[in-house]
Amino acid sequence: MTETDRPAVTVLGLGAMGTALAEALLAEGHPVTVWNRTATRADPLVERGAARAATPGEAIAASSLVLTCLLDYASVHEVLDEHGDALRGRVLANLTNGTPAQARRFAEWAACHGADYLDGGIMAVPPQIATPEAFLLYSGSRAAFDTHRGTLAVLGESHYLGEAAGLAALHDIALLSGMYGMFAGIVHAFAVVRAEGTPAAEFAPLLTRWLSAMGGWAHAAAGQIDSGDYTTGVVSNLGMQAAGFANLIRTAEEQGLSPELLAPFGSLLRRRAEAGHAREDITGVIELLRKGNPA
Amino acid sequence: MTETDRPAVTVLGLGAMGTALAEALLAEGHPVTVWNRTATRADPLVERGAARAATPGEAIAASSLVLTCLLDYASVHEVLDEHGDALRGRVLANLTNGTPAQARRFAEWAACHGADYLDGGIMAVPPQIATPEAFLLYSGSRAAFDTHRGTLAVLGESHYLGEAAGLAALHDIALLSGMYGMFAGIVHAFAVVRAEGTPAAEFAPLLTRWLSAMGGWAHAAAGQIDSGDYTTGVVSNLGMQAAGFANLIRTAEEQGLSPELLAPFGSLLRRRAEAGHAREDITGVIELLRKGNPA
Repeated sequence: MTETDRPAVTVLGLGAMGTALAEALLAEGHPVTVWNRTATRADPLVERGAARAATPGEAIAASSLVLTCLLDYASVHEVLDEHGDALRGRVLANLTNGTPAQARRFAEWAACHGADYLDGGIMAVPPQIATPEAFLLYSGSRAAFDTHRGTLAVLGESHYLGEAAGLAALHDIALLSGMYGMFAGIVHAFAVVRAEGTPAAEFAPLLTRWLSAMGGWAHAAAGQIDSGDYTTGVVSNLGMQAAGFANLIRTAEEQGLSPELLAPFGSLLRRRAEAGHAREDITGVIELLRKGNPA
Repeated sequence: MTETDRPAVTVLGLGAMGTALAEALLAEGHPVTVWNRTATRADPLVERGAARAATPGEAIAASSLVLTCLLDYASVHEVLDEHGDALRGRVLANLTNGTPAQARRFAEWAACHGADYLDGGIMAVPPQIATPEAFLLYSGSRAAFDTHRGTLAVLGESHYLGEAAGLAALHDIALLSGMYGMFAGIVHAFAVVRAEGTPAAEFAPLLTRWLSAMGGWAHAAAGQIDSGDYTTGVVSNLGMQAAGFANLIRTAEEQGLSPELLAPFGSLLRRRAEAGHAREDITGVIELLRKGNPA
């Protein structure tokens, strides 16, 4: 394939992520048109061969695939609201962070203007783009995904989740939620060992090995959660774990550490035990997250 | 090695874990003496060759290595307080869950009675004992660990952490803290996907893969934490992540889910940003866990 065979791509928004996306496409020989509110942010890309558009409308007109990677949905609307008609017949792949509801509302707006809509979630930091570490979630128009599959693969491994526009944001948010839970656990764990003089770096290999082994819990938990039956395969029941959990909180307090990152899980264990589920598995605490569900 | 060459071991406490320890030692041909407050819990072990002691003192007298695996330190003192002198010259390896401070105080009690003390943390559930999944942390007397290294290896992979008696409990508590943080993230993530109709089992493979990849963050974070410098290698700064975190909370609220498991980490991000660290890495939130440390 020669350079000119590669489909043209427009990138709206040149923060660190938008810039990384445009760079990756340029490196693979795609004609790339860029626009950013602060036009000088495009300078390094223009030096590498990108075309700078004076307006979002001009940028949209240059390519059949338009990527948006902006700060938030307010920015997306500021940039695109006047240019809805320019999108007609093009594919709009929106990689801006947001909630599933925001993605669904924006998909409706795009449909109104005759654009073929893909919503995307980027599971990577900018330096990982176009490396094996990057993966991207997509949902919305399957036709749009199939047409541009090759181009999108330049950015990272692509996962197409289905036609419902909110699915990519839903999975993105859920993955990040899981990650920040793990990060909170890691930060607390480091605070605990350091409080008694063990350097974090000395403890890190044991911690990562342990977390990696315990991550498999997700598979067993998923089966229980989908069935709603938390009584099967119970090895260490909720009551015992609630009792053991008290030692985690007590240790933090003895060390003069705030237990605030761990306390909410302990509170769910306690509430669930008090509601009569002490002999079940801990997975049942998920029932307490649904508002209005007392136990 | 013939059966009779194996060192004799006493196990005090036959809950699920104590029973698993005794079973593993019996299976490897060790002479095992057991005691439990409710004596009938020993029946299956006696059938497999264990000797049942009528009192803790009689059990202690039977072996040079005494393992305690009781509910908590209150139980340990109830069982051992009258039998301190029987422990003189023996190795007491206490595998009861507790805090580092409890382990240190108990090591002093054991030293007073002339016992060689090892504190242990079991990083496994009972069915994992004596399988490659089990690992056990030890601290305290190095001589005691070296003497009984072969016997302890029957239970699982052994990690000796140092002479300070509290180290095993410290590492045990820190590992469990990390694990429950990750579990909290997993539970929240499953609630998020299920709120919009995606089964947990369908999402689990993506989640475990993601968590496994992101677990590596611990290594970078450890370096920053030990140095106290959160300004190096910043790819996605705290201010940006605090803004993105708001989408996680908003999604939970749009779905009618309580964000209580995630909210504390978001609150730390926000407080740290407000204190002027928005351009640093998120790892600096650890500073906020030290009580009396405003930012």
